[in-house]
Amino acid sequence: MSKRIITISREFGAGGHTLGADLARAMGIAFYDQEIIDSAVAETGFSPEFVRDAGEYASSSHSFLFHLAMSHGMTSGGAMELSNYDKIYIAQARTIQEMANKSPCVIVGRCADYILRDRDDVFNVFVRANDEYRKQRILEHYGPVEGKSISERLQEKDKKRMLYYRHYTDREWGNIKNYHLVIDASVIPLDMAVRWIMEAVR
Amino acid sequence: MSKRIITISREFGAGGHTLGADLARAMGIAFYDQEIIDSAVAETGFSPEFVRDAGEYASSSHSFLFHLAMSHGMTSGGAMELSNYDKIYIAQARTIQEMANKSPCVIVGRCADYILRDRDDVFNVFVRANDEYRKQRILEHYGPVEGKSISERLQEKDKKRMLYYRHYTDREWGNIKNYHLVIDASVIPLDMAVRWIMEAVR
Repeated sequence: MSKRIITISREFGAGGHTLGADLARAMGIAFYDQEIIDSAVAETGFSPEFVRDAGEYASSSHSFLFHLAMSHGMTSGGAMELSNYDKIYIAQARTIQEMANKSPCVIVGRCADYILRDRDDVFNVFVRANDEYRKQRILEHYGPVEGKSISERLQEKDKKRMLYYRHYTDREWGNIKNYHLVIDASVIPLDMAVRWIMEAVR
Repeated sequence: MSKRIITISREFGAGGHTLGADLARAMGIAFYDQEIIDSAVAETGFSPEFVRDAGEYASSSHSFLFHLAMSHGMTSGGAMELSNYDKIYIAQARTIQEMANKSPCVIVGRCADYILRDRDDVFNVFVRANDEYRKQRILEHYGPVEGKSISERLQEKDKKRMLYYRHYTDREWGNIKNYHLVIDASVIPLDMAVRWIMEAVR
């Protein structure tokens, strides 16, 4: 069962973005991270800044109403009014599906595992790590933020990702059942994980 | 960070037992599965059959009371009466700790990941698989059971494991945070997982 597309979900600071970039480079395939997805979506008319920020927040509309609208194929408004956040999610989902159709690729974040759930050529990875490892990595990669402890930044970002994922997928973020491989990056080095994934999808 | 002990938690039918046995053989270290732990515990006075069945059921005592008793060091009765199930769990925990102290080993099931949580030389693996894979594996390895569908057996066994784990650990079974590696055996062959784990713990 060959897997053409690899999605990477990750806790903040666990190194999922680096893993994705290294993996795509090692495999010689396309790499789509949040920024690339955002910029593709921005081409649909929303400002790049608005798209970027929308990815951090779950829509203020009710998740149930969103899924109801989806199940009725109302992807562009209609009787039920969709929020701009919802519209951006829909544009992102379409973009991710196009990326997956085009060629083998690695996609980081943005509910890609859920958006591509009906394909059988997708390999879903989740990268986690213990708090100590993540805090050190955040300091090294992003530096300190005035007035906010690293613990607060960790919790805040994880919570946003969890809420965003739950809102749009109706599933729990980090549920073991949604991934083919979960690695703890504080114990399994990223370069080892890259080799393993390449072996698994071959 | 070298890991001497590997614990394997697993969904019913995912092949965790086979993975554990193959891994221990490949590494040339001891292998302890449920039966071995049960028989060690039976040496403490309980009948082997009673110990075996106890591992399938969470105690009827309240989880909170059990953990309260534990935190007061009341491992052998005392003011608060422990059920026989609880006593067996305690004997099992002690047995697993002794096994871990003795020599490098692979331990399957029985909350070993939780029981050994304070050690830093333990590598925790969870083996899952999709239902289709598990059903086929159960039929091949255990055969059909009259009057019970495979779906029912799957759900029943997973639920027992989940309840047993929750009762004694106060944590959720299969929570992504408790494992260093999670593999979906329907996509990652067991022999590949054996090699990966050997590489990770080296």
